[in-house]
Amino acid sequence: MYKSGLSFVEVYSELEHSVLALDAVVLSKTTAFQQLDIVDSSLYGRSLVLDGSWQSSSRDEAHYHEALVHPAFLAYAAAHGAAGPSTVLILGGGEGATAREALRWPSVTKVVMVDIDGEVVEACKEHMPEFSAGAFDDPKVELVIGDALKYLADAGADANGPRFDVVISDLSDPIDDGPSQALFTREVFASVRGVLSPEGVYVLQAGQVSPFLEMHVHTYSTMKAVYPHVLGYSTDVASFRSHWGFMLGAFSDAYAPQATCLGRPAPFSPLFAASAIDTLLAGADLTDSLQLLDGEGMLSMVTHPKWLRTAYARATKVFSSSDAELASYTTTLDDENEPAAAQ
Amino acid sequence: MYKSGLSFVEVYSELEHSVLALDAVVLSKTTAFQQLDIVDSSLYGRSLVLDGSWQSSSRDEAHYHEALVHPAFLAYAAAHGAAGPSTVLILGGGEGATAREALRWPSVTKVVMVDIDGEVVEACKEHMPEFSAGAFDDPKVELVIGDALKYLADAGADANGPRFDVVISDLSDPIDDGPSQALFTREVFASVRGVLSPEGVYVLQAGQVSPFLEMHVHTYSTMKAVYPHVLGYSTDVASFRSHWGFMLGAFSDAYAPQATCLGRPAPFSPLFAASAIDTLLAGADLTDSLQLLDGEGMLSMVTHPKWLRTAYARATKVFSSSDAELASYTTTLDDENEPAAAQ
Amino acid sequence: MYKSGLSFVEVYSELEHSVLALDAVVLSKTTAFQQLDIVDSSLYGRSLVLDGSWQSSSRDEAHYHEALVHPAFLAYAAAHGAAGPSTVLILGGGEGATAREALRWPSVTKVVMVDIDGEVVEACKEHMPEFSAGAFDDPKVELVIGDALKYLADAGADANGPRFDVVISDLSDPIDDGPSQALFTREVFASVRGVLSPEGVYVLQAGQVSPFLEMHVHTYSTMKAVYPHVLGYSTDVASFRSHWGFMLGAFSDAYAPQATCLGRPAPFSPLFAASAIDTLLAGADLTDSLQLLDGEGMLSMVTHPKWLRTAYARATKVFSSSDAELASYTTTLDDENEPAAAQ
Amino acid sequence: MYKSGLSFVEVYSELEHSVLALDAVVLSKTTAFQQLDIVDSSLYGRSLVLDGSWQSSSRDEAHYHEALVHPAFLAYAAAHGAAGPSTVLILGGGEGATAREALRWPSVTKVVMVDIDGEVVEACKEHMPEFSAGAFDDPKVELVIGDALKYLADAGADANGPRFDVVISDLSDPIDDGPSQALFTREVFASVRGVLSPEGVYVLQAGQVSPFLEMHVHTYSTMKAVYPHVLGYSTDVASFRSHWGFMLGAFSDAYAPQATCLGRPAPFSPLFAASAIDTLLAGADLTDSLQLLDGEGMLSMVTHPKWLRTAYARATKVFSSSDAELASYTTTLDDENEPAAAQ
Repeated sequence: MYKSGLSFVEVYSELEHSVLALDAVVLSKTTAFQQLDIVDSSLYGRSLVLDGSWQSSSRDEAHYHEALVHPAFLAYAAAHGAAGPSTVLILGGGEGATAREALRWPSVTKVVMVDIDGEVVEACKEHMPEFSAGAFDDPKVELVIGDALKYLADAGADANGPRFDVVISDLSDPIDDGPSQALFTREVFASVRGVLSPEGVYVLQAGQVSPFLEMHVHTYSTMKAVYPHVLGYSTDVASFRSHWGFMLGAFSDAYAPQATCLGRPAPFSPLFAASAIDTLLAGADLTDSLQLLDGEGMLSMVTHPKWLRTAYARATKVFSSSDAELASYTTTLDDENEPAAAQ
Repeated sequence: MYKSGLSFVEVYSELEHSVLALDAVVLSKTTAFQQLDIVDSSLYGRSLVLDGSWQSSSRDEAHYHEALVHPAFLAYAAAHGAAGPSTVLILGGGEGATAREALRWPSVTKVVMVDIDGEVVEACKEHMPEFSAGAFDDPKVELVIGDALKYLADAGADANGPRFDVVISDLSDPIDDGPSQALFTREVFASVRGVLSPEGVYVLQAGQVSPFLEMHVHTYSTMKAVYPHVLGYSTDVASFRSHWGFMLGAFSDAYAPQATCLGRPAPFSPLFAASAIDTLLAGADLTDSLQLLDGEGMLSMVTHPKWLRTAYARATKVFSSSDAELASYTTTLDDENEPAAAQ
Repeated sequence: MYKSGLSFVEVYSELEHSVLALDAVVLSKTTAFQQLDIVDSSLYGRSLVLDGSWQSSSRDEAHYHEALVHPAFLAYAAAHGAAGPSTVLILGGGEGATAREALRWPSVTKVVMVDIDGEVVEACKEHMPEFSAGAFDDPKVELVIGDALKYLADAGADANGPRFDVVISDLSDPIDDGPSQALFTREVFASVRGVLSPEGVYVLQAGQVSPFLEMHVHTYSTMKAVYPHVLGYSTDVASFRSHWGFMLGAFSDAYAPQATCLGRPAPFSPLFAASAIDTLLAGADLTDSLQLLDGEGMLSMVTHPKWLRTAYARATKVFSSSDAELASYTTTLDDENEPAAAQ
Repeated sequence: MYKSGLSFVEVYSELEHSVLALDAVVLSKTTAFQQLDIVDSSLYGRSLVLDGSWQSSSRDEAHYHEALVHPAFLAYAAAHGAAGPSTVLILGGGEGATAREALRWPSVTKVVMVDIDGEVVEACKEHMPEFSAGAFDDPKVELVIGDALKYLADAGADANGPRFDVVISDLSDPIDDGPSQALFTREVFASVRGVLSPEGVYVLQAGQVSPFLEMHVHTYSTMKAVYPHVLGYSTDVASFRSHWGFMLGAFSDAYAPQATCLGRPAPFSPLFAASAIDTLLAGADLTDSLQLLDGEGMLSMVTHPKWLRTAYARATKVFSSSDAELASYTTTLDDENEPAAAQ
């Protein structure tokens, strides 16, 4: 039984939508780039919505942001026998929660965050301060309001420009006419190399794995066209009503496939060793402060059902900046979504 | 953008509902027990809906039914050094797909299926024959149209009654006024013991893990009140727009906690050993025929985010047949749903 | 095609609901009496919603409020050969638009408005000032924040209490658990007599005529049980997606049935004479300031399809304050809703 | 409170949609021309839906079809002092209910019905036989499956072709990509002249009057560009959740404006005389068989609120077959929708 009142309608496609009752609308405005809504609901808490697409909710944003940030940091730390990365670039991440998670690592000395929409950043600082938890006031954090693509091009072209141990892409999905539409392409993925330290790791939120995995597996094949070492992983984000995907990429063979508990080699292999992950987290004093991540939580993200590995193995599409179809991947079913007998 | 037309509305609670476009309504009738709809949609294929609650869809029912059936069979096989269980009892399972999966195992000699609603079984045989794939015609299968509770009571009370190596509960959630409302209780879980062989395994579909995990974790604490060895596991079922939970229970110490790749002991420990699972599946000639399950797929289901293990550890509620609140668990949030710092 | 975003869901019954995209939520709060929302939508403008039920919208509130106020004033003026009523009592009417329309008549010297929810009145003054258009600041207007029932009882019991030429009931429908639930009864209709001047007219908003007319026709039969002269009328209110009903009642035989252009006598017969109405409006200098009402507009409201007159003629239910069913009339279909062969 | 289950979603625009619970889906198919659904709902009975747009429902189709057919017949009868029209052309009208109403008149000797979609006609005959009530078997009825435009062109060009006393356009609205998109234009309205007897009357369903009247008033101005005598009228159709418009057009001065009870002359003036209409209906033995129409019911349809007459008076748009905007009129608001001070 559904009752009358203020609601949020999220239209996934012309074939499916959901309706969520709201307690309050904290802010609703059209910025220079997109529609921005901050809403409260009993089910998911305070939430950010951009162009009608759910971004993050207080109830479970920690799950999303931990999954986005810590695997890359852990992989970097394991590969270097060090405490973790020093320099971090965040593309997008307007809520400030990605920066918050990065700042948990004592090894971090610098976080640059590039977001195109300063109005979103300001609104989140005012109305969702617990998402950034002071990150915007941290002297290690440099906030750049600007185009992530331009930042990558300029910084990469500058021989003395900044280089980062971890680059985090926290951009909204390349759907519709939102500002992130052109950002999930071979060209963009390649341009990240220009700002990545040689042993660095690139991680991106990479679209839903379920119910519709096309965007995610095509992002995987696009990443594979650029990065020699790629690992997809995923976890559940309740407020998305989806299983959400992420992706690690690296050029350094420090991340090359090695033996895992699965009985098969895999890139970023330390992420499959639960006890070692627990040890790394303890070293960064992160044993008690995380909600999703510990050794077993990490393993739950990198192990996959057979159908997902089959889809990765079959994916061949490479998104290019000249690809006119970019807008429509989340809702189109194609053969690659079909389960298969063998990987 | 959502377009006009025949749709299916699933009201999750008074605060949330979803709307799905249908291609066709194959059957819509009120049986003696419930509302029965069989529908076609472009997104999820042919689907069974009972009392407005989505049961299974051709697009991904294999994921659900493999997750329901094979872990118990693998645990039994691993514990006994044998090819797998011989006798199987299915409570519910009207589509016939649970029986279909059970029959994949060469070790199986007898499957008894007890479903209260013969009209659902007949409708599925006629309109969704690929779900049962001939299972109802297999001489190993005995179909009993009747009350699962009564079957358990009668068979358990009969000293010469049947005993089963695996008992599978494939009953719909205990919500609303559906026929399964009284089936997720301590009393019912205990009554299964009467029909379980001493080394047998009981497995049940155990409600969503995400977005709302109350029902699932309370099922866990209820199972723990009866069974010494319990393991919760979960996987994504796209057409549910949920991460779905299952639960194994056993009395035999053959399933007692032992070392795993997680660095901590766990019940049903062989399910955490990916290579060994692959070997067992190969022994049952199941390497190529499954979509979700292999060694890594199994590991992906039994490894959990920290917040879920925390919720298991904190759960104390025990559902009883005298519990008047049974109807409301899937939509109520309480403290146990909150993430916690430590397990 | 419907797009994502902030929306208002109005659930008419468990069988029907509508969804409207919002531009903004101006205010959303729970008062001491009800849920109060003030919202903006492209389709209907700024709108007041109480307990999830649409009250009035800037786009067409003039239609509703003209229909509520002026017919009673015109009937009074026609009956008395005078310019119009002098004293007016408004029950409810929190937006202030009913008072605004009453104040258009030069004959009016006193308007008393009794609304139970001062928070609604304040919110409307602040966020919808064009609805009251200064009425709350008019020295002729006395605002009483209190229970309309109690006001009627107290004023009626006071032999020297106020008596009104026109009493206007602008209360929300007697549905659900809203504050107006007990106000559409024989007892309340009778209690109005205590404050009505002998030649006075009582008018009430009387529920939808279409698509579901039960509430309206039962209000008619309840009025007929108390008032010798009753006339139902109706007009379209776009933002309600309904044809909306009103009702006039009077004790004085000045309103007794007389000949009309219909070829049959009818109560409040001057309302059927378009030219005479135009003359009355001109006398009150209202020819140019109204949107809905003139002689023909009046005639359009008091003339009815045969099926509606049939329903009036057949209605026998009398709502009583002891009637436990009051809450459910807008959504229940019964035989009286069926068209009939003869009136 | 809205409950789970089979539903019909009607998306009015990207800003508004409604959801209706269904009891059953009787038929759902894609014809050569459109999506065809026949559904049952508790609220509205058996209903026909074409391309997601509600056409007619058993609960209130009599209201719609009486309003469509009888005013033109009454006007013809009044103008000729005769019992009524002899020959009738119906454009569209697949359910057969328009033919059924025409056949009520003893004066009728021939009804030609031209509908483009034979599958709709067959489906209605099979699944909604009470709509046609035997009309398709009546020897006076000739059913032509074909394009209405081509029929008009061919018949009009044939000097010996059929001429009709009444032409009824019962075509769906010119929205989206439905088969009727090109049919509400000056050219089509003009082409009707070729098949209209000199004293004949053309009547068309003319789109909703409320909540959005653009399509209706622009149809009015388009009709005025062709026909010297035009009258818009409207009535409530519950299952449309709209006030629905119709329009009469004629070339003969027999329909020229004359005095009415409104105190102003109007075209088709006999329709404003309730008693005379009752007399005409009695002459055709229709006093007892109709649900909506009698003298007062007729008057309720031709009398209008001031805002509607203002909109008629201001309308200037003329739809032409070359007009690319034809598809978007039902949902666009423009200045002509605004109420005005004077007509």
